Amino acid sequence: MSAFGHIPEIQYEGRRSTNPFAYKFYNAQEKVLGKTMEEHLRIAVSYWHTFTGNGADPFGAGTAIRPWDRFSGMDLAKARVEAAFELFGKLGVPYFCFHDRDIAPEGNTLQETNRNLDEIVALIQEYMKTSRTKLLWNTANMFTHPRFVHGAATTSNADVFAYAAAQVKKALEHAKQLGAENYVFWGGREGYETLLNTDLKLEQDNLARFLHMAVAYAKEIGFTGQFLIEPKPKEPSKHQYDFDAATTIAFLQNYGLKEYFKLNIEANHATLAGHTFEHELRVARLAGMLGSIDANQGDLLLGWDTDEFPTDLYSTTLAMYEILQNNGLGSGGVNFDAKVRRASFEPDDLVIAHIAGIDSFARGLKVAAKLIEDRVLEQVIEDRYASFREGIGLDIVSGKANFHTLEQYALQNKPIVNKSGRQELIKATINQYLLNVE
Amino acid sequence: MSAFGHIPEIQYEGRRSTNPFAYKFYNAQEKVLGKTMEEHLRIAVSYWHTFTGNGADPFGAGTAIRPWDRFSGMDLAKARVEAAFELFGKLGVPYFCFHDRDIAPEGNTLQETNRNLDEIVALIQEYMKTSRTKLLWNTANMFTHPRFVHGAATTSNADVFAYAAAQVKKALEHAKQLGAENYVFWGGREGYETLLNTDLKLEQDNLARFLHMAVAYAKEIGFTGQFLIEPKPKEPSKHQYDFDAATTIAFLQNYGLKEYFKLNIEANHATLAGHTFEHELRVARLAGMLGSIDANQGDLLLGWDTDEFPTDLYSTTLAMYEILQNNGLGSGGVNFDAKVRRASFEPDDLVIAHIAGIDSFARGLKVAAKLIEDRVLEQVIEDRYASFREGIGLDIVSGKANFHTLEQYALQNKPIVNKSGRQELIKATINQYLLNVE
Amino acid sequence: MSAFGHIPEIQYEGRRSTNPFAYKFYNAQEKVLGKTMEEHLRIAVSYWHTFTGNGADPFGAGTAIRPWDRFSGMDLAKARVEAAFELFGKLGVPYFCFHDRDIAPEGNTLQETNRNLDEIVALIQEYMKTSRTKLLWNTANMFTHPRFVHGAATTSNADVFAYAAAQVKKALEHAKQLGAENYVFWGGREGYETLLNTDLKLEQDNLARFLHMAVAYAKEIGFTGQFLIEPKPKEPSKHQYDFDAATTIAFLQNYGLKEYFKLNIEANHATLAGHTFEHELRVARLAGMLGSIDANQGDLLLGWDTDEFPTDLYSTTLAMYEILQNNGLGSGGVNFDAKVRRASFEPDDLVIAHIAGIDSFARGLKVAAKLIEDRVLEQVIEDRYASFREGIGLDIVSGKANFHTLEQYALQNKPIVNKSGRQELIKATINQYLLNVE
Amino acid sequence: MSAFGHIPEIQYEGRRSTNPFAYKFYNAQEKVLGKTMEEHLRIAVSYWHTFTGNGADPFGAGTAIRPWDRFSGMDLAKARVEAAFELFGKLGVPYFCFHDRDIAPEGNTLQETNRNLDEIVALIQEYMKTSRTKLLWNTANMFTHPRFVHGAATTSNADVFAYAAAQVKKALEHAKQLGAENYVFWGGREGYETLLNTDLKLEQDNLARFLHMAVAYAKEIGFTGQFLIEPKPKEPSKHQYDFDAATTIAFLQNYGLKEYFKLNIEANHATLAGHTFEHELRVARLAGMLGSIDANQGDLLLGWDTDEFPTDLYSTTLAMYEILQNNGLGSGGVNFDAKVRRASFEPDDLVIAHIAGIDSFARGLKVAAKLIEDRVLEQVIEDRYASFREGIGLDIVSGKANFHTLEQYALQNKPIVNKSGRQELIKATINQYLLNVE
Repeated sequence: MSAFGHIPEIQYEGRRSTNPFAYKFYNAQEKVLGKTMEEHLRIAVSYWHTFTGNGADPFGAGTAIRPWDRFSGMDLAKARVEAAFELFGKLGVPYFCFHDRDIAPEGNTLQETNRNLDEIVALIQEYMKTSRTKLLWNTANMFTHPRFVHGAATTSNADVFAYAAAQVKKALEHAKQLGAENYVFWGGREGYETLLNTDLKLEQDNLARFLHMAVAYAKEIGFTGQFLIEPKPKEPSKHQYDFDAATTIAFLQNYGLKEYFKLNIEANHATLAGHTFEHELRVARLAGMLGSIDANQGDLLLGWDTDEFPTDLYSTTLAMYEILQNNGLGSGGVNFDAKVRRASFEPDDLVIAHIAGIDSFARGLKVAAKLIEDRVLEQVIEDRYASFREGIGLDIVSGKANFHTLEQYALQNKPIVNKSGRQELIKATINQYLLNVE
Repeated sequence: MSAFGHIPEIQYEGRRSTNPFAYKFYNAQEKVLGKTMEEHLRIAVSYWHTFTGNGADPFGAGTAIRPWDRFSGMDLAKARVEAAFELFGKLGVPYFCFHDRDIAPEGNTLQETNRNLDEIVALIQEYMKTSRTKLLWNTANMFTHPRFVHGAATTSNADVFAYAAAQVKKALEHAKQLGAENYVFWGGREGYETLLNTDLKLEQDNLARFLHMAVAYAKEIGFTGQFLIEPKPKEPSKHQYDFDAATTIAFLQNYGLKEYFKLNIEANHATLAGHTFEHELRVARLAGMLGSIDANQGDLLLGWDTDEFPTDLYSTTLAMYEILQNNGLGSGGVNFDAKVRRASFEPDDLVIAHIAGIDSFARGLKVAAKLIEDRVLEQVIEDRYASFREGIGLDIVSGKANFHTLEQYALQNKPIVNKSGRQELIKATINQYLLNVE
Repeated sequence: MSAFGHIPEIQYEGRRSTNPFAYKFYNAQEKVLGKTMEEHLRIAVSYWHTFTGNGADPFGAGTAIRPWDRFSGMDLAKARVEAAFELFGKLGVPYFCFHDRDIAPEGNTLQETNRNLDEIVALIQEYMKTSRTKLLWNTANMFTHPRFVHGAATTSNADVFAYAAAQVKKALEHAKQLGAENYVFWGGREGYETLLNTDLKLEQDNLARFLHMAVAYAKEIGFTGQFLIEPKPKEPSKHQYDFDAATTIAFLQNYGLKEYFKLNIEANHATLAGHTFEHELRVARLAGMLGSIDANQGDLLLGWDTDEFPTDLYSTTLAMYEILQNNGLGSGGVNFDAKVRRASFEPDDLVIAHIAGIDSFARGLKVAAKLIEDRVLEQVIEDRYASFREGIGLDIVSGKANFHTLEQYALQNKPIVNKSGRQELIKATINQYLLNVE
Repeated sequence: MSAFGHIPEIQYEGRRSTNPFAYKFYNAQEKVLGKTMEEHLRIAVSYWHTFTGNGADPFGAGTAIRPWDRFSGMDLAKARVEAAFELFGKLGVPYFCFHDRDIAPEGNTLQETNRNLDEIVALIQEYMKTSRTKLLWNTANMFTHPRFVHGAATTSNADVFAYAAAQVKKALEHAKQLGAENYVFWGGREGYETLLNTDLKLEQDNLARFLHMAVAYAKEIGFTGQFLIEPKPKEPSKHQYDFDAATTIAFLQNYGLKEYFKLNIEANHATLAGHTFEHELRVARLAGMLGSIDANQGDLLLGWDTDEFPTDLYSTTLAMYEILQNNGLGSGGVNFDAKVRRASFEPDDLVIAHIAGIDSFARGLKVAAKLIEDRVLEQVIEDRYASFREGIGLDIVSGKANFHTLEQYALQNKPIVNKSGRQELIKATINQYLLNVE
């Protein structure tokens, strides 16, 4: 079977190409600020949207036409692996990501489920031997099955907590087996539906207990990948505990988990929380906890997680700006946690959409790199905060000032002169960079 | 001058009264769960909305008709004090709150401004001698004047930081002089307009430095009131650093300030951040940081801070539930940070609106107390989380379990039986309590 | 099979009852303003949420435990009918509503699908002979099947338009056969995903053509029920053509359809469009087009259609106020287009949730009736607009005034005296009515 | 006095220029699709934001530094006129717009107010003799003064209606005097604060009466400019009657006003109503009612009207696409109803911001023109709806089909084959056009 047989290997063909199966801006080996685009971006395809997703929405059944859908059960699982590595190869992407339940069906017992999983993991391992695509991260799906209706680590039912633990134990073993560079927790059901029946403290304590057990088990088996947590404020839950970067960092710190985790920041989750993507990246970066990103975009006029492929170049530019300032994502990457629209149901759309998204990040990388090279925003900030590098400002920053000295200073009644923040000029400048970067 | 001369002292006249100037539910001396309503609620009137606010909005000038508006300058400031104590007395409220610039006009120099302030503070102190209304908290307005365009403690201009410090120094002295039971920081401009020109780290470091200086100065002068921070996500800023309770607690912890501060939670700020009021109260409570509340309500179909007088009994009930579970607010209180609608511009509306709000909290108190007395929600939670008090659940909670023991347990494949969360039943039950409590 | 065997027929047991299977406020035969509660409310159960819904959400599988789920195919369809009439009887509700695909599964051909449907319709007809529960409305589900990915009447594919027409033709025949009092159109996919590939004009023209054909066919077969359109702004589509009441009325008018249609207003759709429920009801009412309501409530902190059972008594009171002012809903009713929460997955929750919702509307009815009886809001409005019943105001309203006469009037410079809108007083008054009505 | 003396006349200096006072993309005389940029864009400066606005927000005083602020009263009004024409000249813009109260202060009587206004209008007329900048539209400010607290045409106070009528009468006379090409109504207070005290029908009837009087008076005096209405959903009101384009068109139609009015569509108002800017433009265009635009942009993470200068090239491209498809704006134009950020308070920011906004529209024009020239979206739509140009689709569109013929067609059970909507491809294509257009 070839799912994408008619599509040639995706090549960089220069920005004037109109071939929908060619990159316009992404050129894996092109150097930007001393590293290749591939090294900067560490692109990953997400298994769930691309190989398991079917286009269903709350009011409609799946629409996706997928060559592998003529199979079922374990045969389907295997056909998806084959299709996945075909696509990874065609796209030339260095990474992929998956949940356990994306790759293999549940059986009647946990044992059977695990056997299914082991078999597919072995198959993936086999494919990885001849592929250059590696596992960015894996995770356990602890939100789809009805058993997780009240949560997984934050369930009200201890049996569910135990089941979830067994699931993550297995997933960590697979992470080690496949050389995953990270392991991610997204707590889709780790929150509450109504505060009225929720023991918030017990649930958060249990979540921390769960994460500590995961850390301990990773250490035990020698899994050295980076643990990541992916904040999201709501949906499917009314309220999730990992609301946003600041909340998640605080949680990790309160429970002695901060040293073991970084954050996986998703664009659409940021906006659902009322923040820009770049805000969340900045918060994580300044805390030294920017680990990886889920690249997508939301529709700010819609109130749910649309997980669109990212095409807004403003957003990709500002995201790459933060990533470059972070000296890259370390073991993390740019994972396309993005799904084709329900109306883009043909297999070709999967290819086109990834090209659209990867190109958008490639362009964002180049614009951000040029902004940094020219010190555009650095210069703005250097000038703007100059008063804190001398005189009373230096006293404040260096800890010499107190309310007495500051009051004395203020009582001199020197005219206070503020300078314009020049937001419009900065935005116009970014437009020029966006359009003019080669 | 009497601003409210035609209005008799507000009396409890029983729930059937239709006199708009009578409490329907609030009865200061009525006992609920062993304390008087007055002790539970610790009601405060906010000076800014009630005596300084004029009903202006972004598209229109002030509409408020206020008897004291025939004065100006310091005479106006004095007339407001007189009117304020008249209203406090009529309403029979135990507390009030103010910003420095609410009570006295700025002068041409900081010295003159301070003299104005000192004079009015002295006048207030004089009124307090014969009034039973005390100062719940005061604060410094560091957001109205143009000098704060880029922030106060988080300004890009060191001179502004110094000015703000001088202002808070003075405010703390007045807090001590007037026996304020708390001192509040609301960082209206402590955030950013655009991340593009913002040194987020320097600004947050400076905010922490400022708060440490305030703590040190309070200690120096022997001001022993509780420091409070009031979270708000945005408006006037694009993004404020004290976004919500979780973010603010994390900030305080990161900068070694947690022991000195509690939170002042506002209903409308909660909803602007995407949370319910009760969520924010719960988060603060569980962190041991629920200090006080700003009682109002927002319009969830509008995207700005409407600061309406609270009349939604669901919200007041759930707020009082959290407060009762917190064993009250300590030195804090229920401050009506609420303004009459722009179209409710007559002086009588000020009185009516306070009665509406206070009554709503009184009713909320009684409903919440009855829910607690009957253990309605406690019983729900006790039953729901029963599995964590024995067997594998107890092992989890007591720290005995790990991924090995939990996997062994899960591999037994015992059927997992979840129980309904019964949200609809709980909500119907609350309706019955709301309507039936005497 | 008895799906609800352990539950006795639901009785009115007075407001102090804590039996979750008893009405607290609804008493079918109790008279309010001269009609029984049953006549006022015309309660309907919606088949889709209650008998077909399974609790799935975008991130999770169905959780619902339903006795009938041991069946499949047509046996399942029949078991649902049995369960449905058992529940209708226990609840004592006078109406139900369904989509064609709720009640019978699709076959391999349209013929087979229609046969399935005919068989179940005949079975329903049989049950209706001995039941007092009638069909409020039926409709065709033209949004779930993948064929409707680009819309039904507004599809880009003429074959789909034809299919949809065949489906509505059949549904109208069933409406006539079962004595449906109305027929509803909800255009879940009648909108667009992106304007970039959409011929907005053709799509809207086609929608109008479709509705005209439906009107013609109803006339042809003698179906005399009321046609209804249900506005919703978005979800599943990015943008739906029936955005809100005003937009829908305009559409109907532009295309010569206004005389044939009324609106079915849903609470949660109103709030998704940025309106209150009562606003949408008022707009429809004033246009003479308030036909029926979908009773539920949304969560204004969430951006999707949560379809919760209505328990907010403010909302039910104001809805019933509009309905009473409309002299009732005519052939329409109060249809509980509401689903139990995913975590309320037990069959009992279905019963409890309906009782909660029906009680909330019963209480709303009584409070609204008392408000009307006492002319509370009428008096407010009479006073407020008094100036338009005499002098220059009467000239304006009666068409005598023009810019010349009005300017002359204004140039007299008489002081303009506005009166307070008294919003806080009105809200406090509503609280008193809410709590005090017997 | 020269307010902008140090700024040379703004020249087109080519896209690589970094001079903040040079256009990067706007070149007035450059031809695009056969017309000059100036003819396409018909740029206007709005007087209120640029010459009257002071940067105040709900929590802070004005920050703007304006050379003319050393004057007051009528001197200030005159200084603003001088500065305005200096700026118009420097920017080289063909149009400006104003409200009556922007240009002259109110007096103690309407007579005095009118005299002030007459004097400034005469001064403006004088300046216009030697300027090439014309009046795009003027309007009456009927929302700032407290008298309009309950609305102007929709007030509850007939005296206010009369005052508003006198004001518009005067404004129409000035429109004629100055050769305004349009006259705009924006109903900032034409809505309600709470439905509880509102006679919705009377208010809407009165609004229609008011507009009819305006039409009649314009005819009487021979003012032949286009009347425009500017929709906005809310703010300052809780709910405005001109909620969005569809609602406004329906209102005009219902009251027999449609032939006299077109719409003035504002970007930020569109998004506050839950629509994209291009949606509103499309709705107006298809109704033949796209008259003019208020060019700005909102912040979709903030819930109020931010009125930012437009710099988002996606938005300007799609706006210009609709305008080109409309064969331009007729007598309307692109009015920068945009204000510099409160923190951009220096006079230079006014110049820079206009250049940023005008350049963004210039670039949008060129991208949109190229998209149209290449028939990019036209081709998508032609292909997508092809089925309606033959066979059963043609029968549908031409009125030959009915439910019988369509059912017969559907019962043939031909496989229904939908085609992908290709949203991702279209968005990627737009990115290429955005970046590659010369």
